[in-house]
Amino acid sequence: MTRLDSAIRRLTAQRDLLDWAVREISPAGLVLEIGLGNGRTYDHLRDRLPGREIYAFERAPAAHPDCYPPEGYLIVGDLFDTLPPFIARHSQGSAALIHIDIGTGDEDANLSLARRLSPLLESLLQPGGILLGDRAFDMPSCRDISAETKVPEGRYFVYRREA
Amino acid sequence: MTRLDSAIRRLTAQRDLLDWAVREISPAGLVLEIGLGNGRTYDHLRDRLPGREIYAFERAPAAHPDCYPPEGYLIVGDLFDTLPPFIARHSQGSAALIHIDIGTGDEDANLSLARRLSPLLESLLQPGGILLGDRAFDMPSCRDISAETKVPEGRYFVYRREA
Repeated sequence: MTRLDSAIRRLTAQRDLLDWAVREISPAGLVLEIGLGNGRTYDHLRDRLPGREIYAFERAPAAHPDCYPPEGYLIVGDLFDTLPPFIARHSQGSAALIHIDIGTGDEDANLSLARRLSPLLESLLQPGGILLGDRAFDMPSCRDISAETKVPEGRYFVYRREA
Repeated sequence: MTRLDSAIRRLTAQRDLLDWAVREISPAGLVLEIGLGNGRTYDHLRDRLPGREIYAFERAPAAHPDCYPPEGYLIVGDLFDTLPPFIARHSQGSAALIHIDIGTGDEDANLSLARRLSPLLESLLQPGGILLGDRAFDMPSCRDISAETKVPEGRYFVYRREA
């Protein structure tokens, strides 16, 4: 498989998974895009979930100009500075869906980041809420349901918070 | 269509077109990848054309480490500095396939670049040789055969040098 094949597979898996999650989630609850990046998946989520409140978190915004959230829905800064006040404002258990794609090339840094983020993400998820992540998170109240999706193993990690 | 849909379409069209070209080109002649970028299409070409001489041109190499050409096959520098001596060394009409993807966000700069590059690219193509470009080029000895490929209009420009 070439890198071009692999990029097509990765993006297609990402789209399939987002479309699956959109069908699965509760009609009530926030949607959080953690790591806006180029804005591609944010654009997909807002298209598939019209009228839904979608917040995007990004340390250094550099998305395509068409892919910025409306005022008040882009939260800029380090996640450990921005998530705690967000949780305080919106209360725990407010998110129906969290999509998080923030990995860098540094695997050690990624592991440490995922470990520190896990309790914050877990507290945001509502019962039945779904988290799609580009890596594993440690969230005791959630079940790893990656195998229930059809995404190739190891490309995405999918969790559902128990009721 | 979301930006995620659009990215999948763009990469799929790119792969379809490279695979088409690989079937079309003469078994003899150089392959030139102009603009190495992340190395994705270079990786695809070398996989589909094992044993073939493939040269990559790049001003500022920043490809994935796995996607670099072997020694002597990466030509670093501004194209207007590197192409003329390459043509002198390999003689005119030495390329069976040129894939060129060098556009930036600046449309005026892109047009000027394409106009200045056209005679250099044209002189490199062998009779029957194919050029796949991310934009239009002005090459009087070549026929625009974009419509013969199944790539959506305007995504790629395809030329074949007349015999």
